[in-house]
Amino acid sequence: MTASDERPRHERLPEPTLRRLPWYLAYLKLIRGRGETVVSSTRIGEETGVTPVQVAKDLSYINISGKTRVGYEVDALVGILDDFLGFSHAHRALLFGVGQLGAALMRDAGLGQYGLDIVAGFDVRPELVGTEIEGIPVYHIDDLPDRCPTLDATIAVITVPVEEAQRVTDQVLACGIRALWNFTPFRIRVPHNVVVQNTSIYANLAVMFNRLNSLTTR
Amino acid sequence: MTASDERPRHERLPEPTLRRLPWYLAYLKLIRGRGETVVSSTRIGEETGVTPVQVAKDLSYINISGKTRVGYEVDALVGILDDFLGFSHAHRALLFGVGQLGAALMRDAGLGQYGLDIVAGFDVRPELVGTEIEGIPVYHIDDLPDRCPTLDATIAVITVPVEEAQRVTDQVLACGIRALWNFTPFRIRVPHNVVVQNTSIYANLAVMFNRLNSLTTR
Repeated sequence: MTASDERPRHERLPEPTLRRLPWYLAYLKLIRGRGETVVSSTRIGEETGVTPVQVAKDLSYINISGKTRVGYEVDALVGILDDFLGFSHAHRALLFGVGQLGAALMRDAGLGQYGLDIVAGFDVRPELVGTEIEGIPVYHIDDLPDRCPTLDATIAVITVPVEEAQRVTDQVLACGIRALWNFTPFRIRVPHNVVVQNTSIYANLAVMFNRLNSLTTR
Repeated sequence: MTASDERPRHERLPEPTLRRLPWYLAYLKLIRGRGETVVSSTRIGEETGVTPVQVAKDLSYINISGKTRVGYEVDALVGILDDFLGFSHAHRALLFGVGQLGAALMRDAGLGQYGLDIVAGFDVRPELVGTEIEGIPVYHIDDLPDRCPTLDATIAVITVPVEEAQRVTDQVLACGIRALWNFTPFRIRVPHNVVVQNTSIYANLAVMFNRLNSLTTR
């Protein structure tokens, strides 16, 4: 297996590739846990529902190639993918809206393992402000401008109610953050040089209901 | 505004349309809350970052058309979209893996409003089995075959650890459930007549990190 030192870390990969790489990684970690040391693209493909050709192509984007008739070294591939996907580097994040979902994200140790380090929560509810969740402080949103410089975060996680989504977005942008992870079903508006990742749980639900209906009426 | 009685509820809509409809709905509910009664496709488009032509086209898929120079009636459009997207009909669901995310989904009243009614949780941890979360019972996974017929669910929510994902999937399929909402980063394997909706939070994170890197090195 080879991985160039000058691999194009910051190239804009095709999004479908970027979405498949974590599947490969999850599978590789699984078999690493079982003590396996080498794996073929055929097997990665079978286990993740992707053609072997596509697997090899996806991995070649990050300058990884398997050895003929041997395959990929599992442990090295896990390390390269973790690194490439940004999971091995801690990205400091602020979370806005400490409700059910927000609090669950703050408690989720998994996010830390995947490179997201939530360093503070913000809310307006008096019963939450001043408390801590898993050692992470919750501040009042009005304190954001003062706290922003020292918190030194690059990402905002938005888990506020829909009607607050745009206002909070504007406050986040004013404090210089340029990447927003939006869990609300609201389509927040941002300048073109800001990254928004939408993870609307309810939109996924709509897709699933529609597919289920297609299935039951077929 | 017109909405035919014979609108093609179960047609397989283009997925991009299906993903935009909840944005429109979230926006419409927002302005309904402010007392607005009519809205144009231009304004829906501006507020959701979609071209007005695309908005009109997306809505025409569900046989909704606005009145010339008047636009859409907000309240009626909310009702039609809620209904079309499956949010107004309660879909009974079982949740597997009552960890941080699983428990948060069980507590999230929002899911009920969006048509997902989680009626039971399943886990293996003795400290969880036999408890309730917001009145929803948590059972042992070994009791699934016995409980499945009376629980009468059509959807399974999968929030177990990666290494359990496929085994739980197989157990769920054995009890006749044909729609799975997979929150794990593992690519579960199912027969072709089963619906899987993947909502991998970590995959979204990878996409965001990559975009953020492109931004900071541009």
